[in-house]
Amino acid sequence: MYDLVIIGSGPAGMAAAVYAARAELDFIVVEKDISGGQILETSDIDNYPGYQNISGFDLAEKFRAHAEACGTEIIEGMKIEDFKQIEGGFELLFDGAKTIETKTILIATGANPRKLGCPGEEELAGAGVSYCATCDGAFFKGRETMVVGGGNTAVEDAIFLARFCSKVTLVHRRDSLRASKNLVTKLQSLPNVTIIWDSVVEKINGEGRVSSVVLKNVKTGETTDYPVNGVFVAVGTKPNNLGWSGKIPCDESGYFIAGETGETQIPGIFAAGDVRTKNLRQIITAAADGANAVYRIEQYLAEMR
Amino acid sequence: MYDLVIIGSGPAGMAAAVYAARAELDFIVVEKDISGGQILETSDIDNYPGYQNISGFDLAEKFRAHAEACGTEIIEGMKIEDFKQIEGGFELLFDGAKTIETKTILIATGANPRKLGCPGEEELAGAGVSYCATCDGAFFKGRETMVVGGGNTAVEDAIFLARFCSKVTLVHRRDSLRASKNLVTKLQSLPNVTIIWDSVVEKINGEGRVSSVVLKNVKTGETTDYPVNGVFVAVGTKPNNLGWSGKIPCDESGYFIAGETGETQIPGIFAAGDVRTKNLRQIITAAADGANAVYRIEQYLAEMR
Repeated sequence: MYDLVIIGSGPAGMAAAVYAARAELDFIVVEKDISGGQILETSDIDNYPGYQNISGFDLAEKFRAHAEACGTEIIEGMKIEDFKQIEGGFELLFDGAKTIETKTILIATGANPRKLGCPGEEELAGAGVSYCATCDGAFFKGRETMVVGGGNTAVEDAIFLARFCSKVTLVHRRDSLRASKNLVTKLQSLPNVTIIWDSVVEKINGEGRVSSVVLKNVKTGETTDYPVNGVFVAVGTKPNNLGWSGKIPCDESGYFIAGETGETQIPGIFAAGDVRTKNLRQIITAAADGANAVYRIEQYLAEMR
Repeated sequence: MYDLVIIGSGPAGMAAAVYAARAELDFIVVEKDISGGQILETSDIDNYPGYQNISGFDLAEKFRAHAEACGTEIIEGMKIEDFKQIEGGFELLFDGAKTIETKTILIATGANPRKLGCPGEEELAGAGVSYCATCDGAFFKGRETMVVGGGNTAVEDAIFLARFCSKVTLVHRRDSLRASKNLVTKLQSLPNVTIIWDSVVEKINGEGRVSSVVLKNVKTGETTDYPVNGVFVAVGTKPNNLGWSGKIPCDESGYFIAGETGETQIPGIFAAGDVRTKNLRQIITAAADGANAVYRIEQYLAEMR
């Protein structure tokens, strides 16, 4: 029986592995695809403190190399399907019938942004289409950007971008915003922000980089070609909760309810990184979660008889 | 009036600066000494994810260079003495009478371990004397170590070290431990742990590296020379709370009461890193705090009228 199985090998899982290895826990990391997580698809990362500019691929490689240098074993291509409680811990199920036994589980499976699903979105991702204003906003200083969405994140992103973009257009499919009133008042006071109501993105255009967006008014059916340099998609994120929201308490969006220590409401099961309820989903905060959770897991194991 | 003044330039302050700069906040970092914080004195850092091994000095330099590359201004040698609330924010006092005005304050002043204060301790710090088992324990695999202290941290450190050290001796000045009962039971069950009661460290010996410790029994006055390879001092830490514990609510040890978002109980004042109440004090968690707090500060500023 392992002390710990870490599910997921992004920044949270790899940081957890570094701490678990240094604590000499008997553990493995299991990864359903290839190791690295969501950052593998990120071209430029400017905000992981200590690396001024690095590609997501290279940073993922550094995280993995660090964990492996400490003695971490990563099993790729292993999709965990279910768990059940057993005496002294848990049984994890994979490949239909195979099992692993472990005293504790750390879920570090991340989250993915919801997509618009329109033509051009996938092709121009990282070339003007972004899912994280905090991460990528600074690349659009002095340029014209669009934010798509109507919740708090969309409005915060628009306020954030308006500080340094020449023009910000918020596009929302309805005729009012779901965001909090203070934020909406602030947004509407900004001279360089335009709001386009009742509209959806039909298509994102550009040769190599975003140049314009085709908007469709859902009430009139009218379409317009709207020039922009960047499109920030803020229509929500989807946690990779392994379909376990019925077994481990989650919030209404499907994130595991867990604070800074990573403790879920099931003793022995912990969550770290984007997949838990938290303030800010970034590489640095995911990595910190991995360290925090392992520290708490060590205490949990020490207190087990 | 600044949007934000960051007090302190260790990992929390520098990570906050990276995020504040990328959010185009109007801010400065003030530092009472030279920039870098506590890690400047750490020789080897093996657990900041992404850097397998780096000196504290070099990592501090990377953090500072990163913040400066984003446009951060760091004012060294500026000791903030007091603050008062003014219309729309705060006035910070320095040099007896000079002031800076700011809408928000982020306190990232860190904490320092309490010292034993015995001969040899300072000379052998980083050469066998450590204040952080989580950070440095792995360097003592297969060797004999001593933990000094009687609280939860001391007992956790001893349990942690016992996993991979050949022998661990816990030395405590009293005849019982303050740590929680579960931890004490666990500690006492470990075959490679010895507890020495009623004793204090009088002197740490070693030429270039720790070789032994002189223990004094406080009841009998008897002294013994006890051979060890490493001494982990776990007699508490002291937050650098600027003497503001009467103005901003702190816990009984003087840490600012603040969760993951860094909000203290005074709106507009935030705390990040070792100086706040938290689960685990490490470079990675301090850096994450800086990012988290700035994200919350942006929301606070956006909601200000």
